[in-house]
Formats: sequence, structure tokens, C-alpha cells
Amino acid sequence: MDFFFKPKGVAIIGASANPVKGGHFILNNVLKGFNGGIYPVNPGYQEINGIKCYPSVLEVPDPVDLAIIFVPARMVPGVLQECAQRGLKGVMIESGGFAETGEQGKQLQKSLDQIRKDTGIRIWGPNCMGLVDAVHNLVFSFVLPAIWDKGLQTGRVSLVVQSGMLSAGFLIDIMSNGIMGISKACSIGNKADINECDLLEYLIDDPETGVIGLYLESIADGRRFIDLCRSSAKPIVVLRGGKSRKGAEAALSHTASLAGNGAVISGALATAGVVEAYDFKQMMDVCRSLANYPQISPEDCRRVGILTMSGAAGILSADFIEAHGLSVARLSPATVEKLQEIFPEWMPVSNPVDLWPAVELNGRKKAYRHSFQALCDDAEVDAILFHVFVGGHAAADISALVEMARQANKPLFGWVMGRREDAHKFQLHAREQEIPVFGELYRAVECMAAVFKRSRYILRKGGKL
Amino acid sequence: MDFFFKPKGVAIIGASANPVKGGHFILNNVLKGFNGGIYPVNPGYQEINGIKCYPSVLEVPDPVDLAIIFVPARMVPGVLQECAQRGLKGVMIESGGFAETGEQGKQLQKSLDQIRKDTGIRIWGPNCMGLVDAVHNLVFSFVLPAIWDKGLQTGRVSLVVQSGMLSAGFLIDIMSNGIMGISKACSIGNKADINECDLLEYLIDDPETGVIGLYLESIADGRRFIDLCRSSAKPIVVLRGGKSRKGAEAALSHTASLAGNGAVISGALATAGVVEAYDFKQMMDVCRSLANYPQISPEDCRRVGILTMSGAAGILSADFIEAHGLSVARLSPATVEKLQEIFPEWMPVSNPVDLWPAVELNGRKKAYRHSFQALCDDAEVDAILFHVFVGGHAAADISALVEMARQANKPLFGWVMGRREDAHKFQLHAREQEIPVFGELYRAVECMAAVFKRSRYILRKGGKL
Repeated sequence: MDFFFKPKGVAIIGASANPVKGGHFILNNVLKGFNGGIYPVNPGYQEINGIKCYPSVLEVPDPVDLAIIFVPARMVPGVLQECAQRGLKGVMIESGGFAETGEQGKQLQKSLDQIRKDTGIRIWGPNCMGLVDAVHNLVFSFVLPAIWDKGLQTGRVSLVVQSGMLSAGFLIDIMSNGIMGISKACSIGNKADINECDLLEYLIDDPETGVIGLYLESIADGRRFIDLCRSSAKPIVVLRGGKSRKGAEAALSHTASLAGNGAVISGALATAGVVEAYDFKQMMDVCRSLANYPQISPEDCRRVGILTMSGAAGILSADFIEAHGLSVARLSPATVEKLQEIFPEWMPVSNPVDLWPAVELNGRKKAYRHSFQALCDDAEVDAILFHVFVGGHAAADISALVEMARQANKPLFGWVMGRREDAHKFQLHAREQEIPVFGELYRAVECMAAVFKRSRYILRKGGKL
Repeated sequence: MDFFFKPKGVAIIGASANPVKGGHFILNNVLKGFNGGIYPVNPGYQEINGIKCYPSVLEVPDPVDLAIIFVPARMVPGVLQECAQRGLKGVMIESGGFAETGEQGKQLQKSLDQIRKDTGIRIWGPNCMGLVDAVHNLVFSFVLPAIWDKGLQTGRVSLVVQSGMLSAGFLIDIMSNGIMGISKACSIGNKADINECDLLEYLIDDPETGVIGLYLESIADGRRFIDLCRSSAKPIVVLRGGKSRKGAEAALSHTASLAGNGAVISGALATAGVVEAYDFKQMMDVCRSLANYPQISPEDCRRVGILTMSGAAGILSADFIEAHGLSVARLSPATVEKLQEIFPEWMPVSNPVDLWPAVELNGRKKAYRHSFQALCDDAEVDAILFHVFVGGHAAADISALVEMARQANKPLFGWVMGRREDAHKFQLHAREQEIPVFGELYRAVECMAAVFKRSRYILRKGGKL
């Protein structure tokens, strides 16, 4: 599989000089970050943007072991045959018009599979957006140039998606938001050959991947998939599309997928330690939380200390925490005593800790530091959920708080609210600190619960995976 | 109650020249937008910022019918007595230190109530953030000046909240985001006198309010509350804090509230046509959706047409729609035929309509207009959920699409994804068009379902409220 992720050279079959064509985007994206040999193939050009263009992949010189194919579907079998003849190890077929389009397309896709069987060439796709590897600046995809706007934000989350959008428009969304990074995003399309299991296996062994998120409309080999998940030391998050009757119908025409029995699949995933997500951004939030905390200690982490600037937000936090089977930590007497030092006398301190009166008395910095330290020191507190209001003050810097929590080995989750730009800056700051911070309170608790659940799974497995 | 919302003159008791004090913020906020008489009261100053300051409310000249009180709790009864003596009709007591702080505070609050009984003066608070009225630029609150950053964004949603944060930090969040507007935000605190029922009754009759959202930790008079909700022609959204055991404990110390039996309350609210929310921002999303669509026709609106740029997003939309008891519309043959005109031959069109191939063939503008018109013309489609990707193209202008939908009398809901700044601009554009657009797909369907549910409630009530 390495030739897909670390090819020595890439032929781009269907490269184009026409700036609105996918074949143009692919070439430009590859040029932007790939350091190996780059060979546009198109009989219509002698060169594209000053780069020599070849009439056929057969003419392409070494080094080349991968081709990205973006030509009309009917031409793909011939091109694939030539790729095999040229000795390429794999192709990414990004053209659509195969099994997703009906009987004729299905036949066409079968013919690709026959070529694979005959020649041993591996096929990624068709009907896909290929690969984005943010760590190595590889964009083997016709995604729009906007993905490069702020550079590729690198992180430990890798994605396997049966959706072009999730590795294109959505990735642009993620990159331009900047609050999470990506390692690899693999768009697998119709899965004529390479499927989610192949990629899952690869990513489980990939040192640059910490968490694997998959959007799937079908699982080709359920047993292999579940076995892989069970054996994975890395957290795996799955979002399934087509759970409803109408959704399943749509999935059939989207990537020619048949979804299986929902409840059975969910049960199997849960017993294999997989976290199920339900929406795109929510999946990303769960993934980035698990990237920050793939395993926590103690694994049976449930007792949450809550630091808030608002009684109401403390109350809803408690509601959400109990609804997710976690508990609002009962603070030790020593902690209560320590907290009381910064609170007005009339205010009895308990968890959730409403910091507002302490902030009024002592200022924000002291109130947060003192209370963080108190919760970090309390053996009755496993984790901390903190709330921050931004805007109208100096920029919030949580590095000292993060350090306290790290020393105490307690995971931190944050909720930020306030001025739009300040809240965004705070989330960027939190990303640098490797702390998950959210704009919605429910989401913060939901992600916290996913992290804790994953650790309990590890505990049940004997603490090792 | 009008003297709270439209006072002729306001005394600010506890006004301060110290720029970090709440009494300073209140004065500055009132000065910024209120056109009536403004009278700082504080024996420590002759003037504040060039405005004459009075030693006591007794000295304050006419016109004055309201006082905002922000002095230490122990001084409040004396001040309140003077306000009654001066002939004021009401006071907003924004100081804390009453029933929320224990036995002594409870006694103090009781003494306020006694003064009310003896004199007839009405009390808003204590322990509250007062009123923000975006339409009339009234900020009777110690909220930070950041709320004025982009001006007060006006809208049809009014809030009644048992939380300072929700009418302060959170309102700053909303105002700086700009994707929804507010009419009035009322922070009611300990509800010594004026409670959620009084304000609900007022807002139901308020011509500037279209939807009422309430965050409550207790309901003082359940029967009156439910009767008001039932009689309201305006949608009412309730977020309850303290539903869990620990949350209820925290609510007790926050605003001295005792939450009632959760399931009973939920049932009563549902039968009164109230939409229950579960989180702060989610509540705002539900409120702004209902502000755009307080009542739709046909009231039994369920069949959704989905226009997407992504197969996966179409599939999840279908999943969410079915999960919420709505249905994916079965397009009429005429619609399918009309849509087929813009699609490649190989692609059989069905709902969800994946526009991507049509956009490739015809460009975005034509693909969206043609498909919108087709769905608007289809009697089998009650409402449209559309997806937009922004970034890398010209700015999306949906005004023509909105007009089509308006002509066809079909509600529109949108999901936007893409470059951060472009997505935000698109949401601002959608607000101007009075169309609810969301950054998360699940939220879009959730809000759609809330709107439809409200209309079915109206239908069951005979179409009139």
C-alpha cells in the first residue's frame, strides 16, 4: 500500500491546462507539495504550465509507481491496462461513471476488476477524491485550491471516507477553521479494490496517525473490519450513512453500497471499542478529542470537576454529565476549604464551581489558577470541564492551567463562549495546547464521554491493546 | 409592566465612576441608548462623567419611574423603601447576595417582598442582569461594553432567562456572530416578584416579539405558565436547567430554585405546544428558525426535498429526516423529468438530489435555480433542505432561490460548509434573507423538525391560536 501514500513518481492521466477542469486541479495540487516525479499525461498537450506532458502513460519515464486517473469512464479500462503494462503498482481512479450510475457502469467497473485480477495492479476508487496527506503536503485529488489557503493543518486524525465532499469541501472547512489538524484523508469511492479494511489496516500501523475516523455507507467485509477495530490500539470513530430506509436507498445510488442491519452493526462496533458518531462535524470533534486523549488514566474516569463562569452553564453541565453516565465529582473537604479562600464568605462552594464571585474578588487569573490547582490536587476529581468567556478582557492564556492538569494527569475539556473572533482565537490557542475546546456545551460533554468510554474499553481489555 | 420596558426616566442607584465596577457599566450602557431621563445615584459623587449624580433617589427629579439598583445586598431594602417613597413604579435589583446565598440572604429577600406588599412597587430580580432591548437600544444591565461592538442585532426573538450569562456573555456571543437578532433579553434572577409568567404574558402581547425563548431552573406557577403557553399564538421554546439530580442541586444554589418532576413538566410543555431545547446555542438555533417560520402552510408539513452537493450529505440528511419523523419527498414524475434536463443522461435523479453532476454540466447558478424551481413546483414537496459549499467560487447569493420558495410558499432550511469566513458571510446573507442556515447538518434537520412540529400543533388546535 505504500505506493499510494509514498509513491516515487506520479502520472496524472487526464491532466489539463483548462483551469476549470478537475484534471487541472489535480496537477496543480500534486505540484504544490509532492517531491517525486510528476508526469502529466494527455495526448492533447505537449506541455502544461511548462511541464512536459506525455501522450500515454507508456511513455512516462521513471520514477513512477502510481497514476491518478481522471478521464471519462469509458476510457478508464484502456488506461488502466496501459498502467499495468507500464508496471505501475497502483492507480487512483477519480473519474465517476461506474457502479454508482447503473447497470452499464457496473459492467465497466467489473472490467476494471478483471484487469486487476489479471495484472495485479491495485485500484483506489473509482468515483473518489483520492488522498490528502497534510503531513507530507500530498493532495492527490481534484479538491479546489482553497484547501491550501492557510496551509494544510497537520494533526493526528486520519480519515477514510466514502464521500468526495468529506475529503474536499469539508476538508477545506476544517483547514480554514484551523481548530483541528489532519494526517491523511482517504476518499475511497466505489471501492472496486481498495476498501475501508485495507486502509484501516494501513492506518493502524501508520506512525503519523493517532485516531482513525471513517464515514462509511457500507462495510465490505464486516468480520475483517470488526477484527481490525478490536485489535487497534488507536481509537476508531465511525459515522455510518444510510441508517434509514431512504438513506440506504440513496447510498445505493451514491457509491453502489448496500447498508447492513443497523442494530447488528452498531452492537458489533461497540463491542470492538469503536465510537459511533452521528454527524460530520460532530465526528471531527470526537476525533480531535480522542487525538488529544487516546487513552487516559485512570481508565475508569467518570468524576468530573466543573469550573464555570455561569450558574446556568454549571447546571447544564451537570445535567449533560449525568445524562452521559458520568458523575459530578464530590469535592473533598480539603478542596472545598482551599476553594473557599478565594470565594466570598457567604458563598458555599460546591461542584459545579461557579467562579464568577471568585473572579470578582480576585481577578480572572488568580481565580482560575487557584481553582484549577485545587481540582488537580483532589483525588476525587478525575477530569476537569472548564468554561471560558472571551471578549472584553485580555486574551485568555491557558498554558499554565494545561500544565497543572498535565502534571496531575487529568484530562481537560473546555467550552468557550463570547466574541466571535476572540472565541476562535481561543480555540486555536487550545489546539496548540492540545486541549479540546468546543463552542457548544453539549458537544464538550459528549466528546468527554466518548474519550472516557474508550478508556473504559481499554480497561476491560486489561489495560493494553 | 411597561415602566420596565419603556420607562420615562431611570435612576441608577449605585452608579460608579470606577471603570471596573458594575455600577459604571450600567450607567454607560443606559447612556448609550436610552433617551429618557438618566439619574445616577451615589452619595460619593457630585457627578459621573459630567452627569449630575444624586445623593439619594429621593432627590431625583422627574421624569423617573424606574430604578436600577446595584448596591451591596444589605443596603437594598433601605434603597427600595426610598424608591417606593419617591413614587417609582418598579426597580431592577441587579445586586446578588439574596436567596441564592443561604438563610440570611433568604431573610433579606423576604424583606424586599414585604416592602413590595406594603408599597405596591414592583421588583425585577434580585441577582439578575436586567434587560437588554436591542430594538430600542436599551441595555439596563452591567453587561460588558463588548455587547455594543457591532451594534445590537435586532430580531424577533425575545428571551427570558434565569441566568446572567445568557443575557451577558452569551448575548455578546450572539451579537458578535450576527447570524441572529434579538428583540428583548430579560434576566430574571431570583424572581422575588416578577417571574417568567409575568414576562411571558408581557412578551406574548409585545408586537416586537415573534418567538419567546426561556431558560428556566424552576417554574413558579406551573398552571399559569402552561395556560399562557397554550394561549400563545407565538412559538415558545423552553430550555430547562436542573433536570438531573446534581443539576437540580446546583440550581438550588444558583437561583434558589427547586426544579419539579422532569417527565411531568416535559409532558405538560409538549401538550401546550412548547418546543423543548437542550443546550444554549441549540436553543437559539431553534428560536431563530421559529422566528423565520412561526407558522407554515401546509401545517402538516413533512415531505422534504433535499438539494445537496454531496452524496454523503444527502444520505445523512435522509437519515436525520426519517429519524425526526419527517419524510424524504417522493418527487413527482414531472419533477424528475424536469431535473433530468440538467443532469447527465447516466444519472437517474431522485431525492435526495445530488446536484454535483448538474453543477459540473451547467454551472452552479443554473443547477441551483433549475432544481429549486422544480422542487418548488412539485406538490409532493412541502419544504426544501438545501446544502451549499462556499469558498473558491463567487459569493453565493440565494435571494432568487428564496424568492422562488416564497412564491411557492415552501419553507427553506440550509446547511453551509466551506471556508470559515465565506461560510460566515453566507450565514449573514441568509439572515438578511430570513432563511435559517446552519453550520451543522443535524442541527438543520432538528430545527426543521421543530418548526414542522409547531405547525402540526397549530393544525391540531384548528389552525388558529
